Amino acid sequence: MTNLFKVSYLGPEGTFSQLAATSYFTGEQKYIPLASIDDVFSSVERSDADFGVVPVENSTEGAVNNTQDCLVDTSLQISGEVIVPITHNMMVSHSSPRIETPKLIVSHRQSLAQCRQWLTSTYPGVPIEEVSSNARAAQLASEQDGVAAIAGELAAQIYKLKIVHRSIQDKSNNSTRFLVLSPSGASPTGKDKTSILVYTGNKPGALFRILEPFENLGISLTKIETRPSKIEAWEYVFFMDFEGHREDLRVLNLFDRLKTCTAEIKILGSYPRFGSEL
Amino acid sequence: MTNLFKVSYLGPEGTFSQLAATSYFTGEQKYIPLASIDDVFSSVERSDADFGVVPVENSTEGAVNNTQDCLVDTSLQISGEVIVPITHNMMVSHSSPRIETPKLIVSHRQSLAQCRQWLTSTYPGVPIEEVSSNARAAQLASEQDGVAAIAGELAAQIYKLKIVHRSIQDKSNNSTRFLVLSPSGASPTGKDKTSILVYTGNKPGALFRILEPFENLGISLTKIETRPSKIEAWEYVFFMDFEGHREDLRVLNLFDRLKTCTAEIKILGSYPRFGSEL
Repeated sequence: MTNLFKVSYLGPEGTFSQLAATSYFTGEQKYIPLASIDDVFSSVERSDADFGVVPVENSTEGAVNNTQDCLVDTSLQISGEVIVPITHNMMVSHSSPRIETPKLIVSHRQSLAQCRQWLTSTYPGVPIEEVSSNARAAQLASEQDGVAAIAGELAAQIYKLKIVHRSIQDKSNNSTRFLVLSPSGASPTGKDKTSILVYTGNKPGALFRILEPFENLGISLTKIETRPSKIEAWEYVFFMDFEGHREDLRVLNLFDRLKTCTAEIKILGSYPRFGSEL
Repeated sequence: MTNLFKVSYLGPEGTFSQLAATSYFTGEQKYIPLASIDDVFSSVERSDADFGVVPVENSTEGAVNNTQDCLVDTSLQISGEVIVPITHNMMVSHSSPRIETPKLIVSHRQSLAQCRQWLTSTYPGVPIEEVSSNARAAQLASEQDGVAAIAGELAAQIYKLKIVHRSIQDKSNNSTRFLVLSPSGASPTGKDKTSILVYTGNKPGALFRILEPFENLGISLTKIETRPSKIEAWEYVFFMDFEGHREDLRVLNLFDRLKTCTAEIKILGSYPRFGSEL
């Protein structure tokens, strides 16, 4: 008998986080849907789960702020990433009348934003309500005729809805990046990525001085993102992703140089780049 | 008889955008509340209003994505900025029973995020619903006993609610920056700020090369923000604010240098720095 991994994800059942979790972990595992991103972090911190899966960024709509804020405080490491193509569909209950126009459209804020142009041109004037997830939207649609949910195909299956419009997102190349969290990081594979947090304080030229060591050491920065520091108003913290593993000599050298020019660094984790196994 | 300016803002009445608009424009003007950030941009583009006022960034919760996305496409210029301290209060209808716990808490997503810790510790387990604005939340609370809204004092006055908890935001130093939009920019005052958009494509080291001219010319970058480019998945556009006016010799020099190292620049506007008139 083998021990299954316990994998928590941003639920309820039918979310894209579930799809990300099941596509990342091969074979049978024990999957645990949780109500919020904070709950996923806590479940792994308390050892109720071995891994947690949360969305961090969408290619059209940008960062998931709540995940970034949790990364600032967590003791967990990022041990993997997975990118899932996002296809949104409009769905209603099977008993809904064959109407042209739904009386209400419900979905998660990010999903609504990803379909904004389609909604404005197809259903101008129809009331739109933000709910906590697109799976929750599907659940609401299943309970009330004439309410249309925007969600993925998995949600339509789980909540037994009929899809009335397929692939309605504004960008055909729409995908979301998810992070896999665990108490310890991943070993080097030779094709890794490292995520760090950098606090600079509010000094002019600070960002330039942070980027200089990357340039001088030839380390490729794949991502930079700004968030309020939460310590001082109008001060920022930088989320940075770059190629390499935290155990690489060149990356250790980078950390040394960064420490001389910034207030603080937090290493969020080193993990295999998505797609590098292909 | 004088002609009043027509100033559109993100409504409904009672929002912090209204407070920002009335604190920026002195004297009597004609104020027009509109339903969305997109509508405020369109109203000025169509000349239905002379100026538009929209939130762009909160000191705790970060950028307002919808405003950033509208800035990418608009022909308008930023002609001013105003920073408003944000104090959130919990309010209920005067006919609500003197209960300890509301049956539902409603507010805008950003306001809920700014009060997240307070809500978790004070009202754990009480259902929370996101609505389109905190003024809309106040309106809902006025219609239904036992529903509590999180909103500003102005909303409590307009919707005749009683405040049951004052100043519940997690950070005492919580403020929001608003932009004033108009068809043409503002003249130099000597204490100005310029906002630009920079598209770099997905080249390694691109950001470093953009920052180099700022460093060499001694131009102080006050802000940098990343957003998905919307053109290609996983490509980014940078929003940058720096000190100086677009007509300054040094800034013209900067633009020349930036053009040699990046794909494209869009000048969003030059305007007096908030507080510089003091």
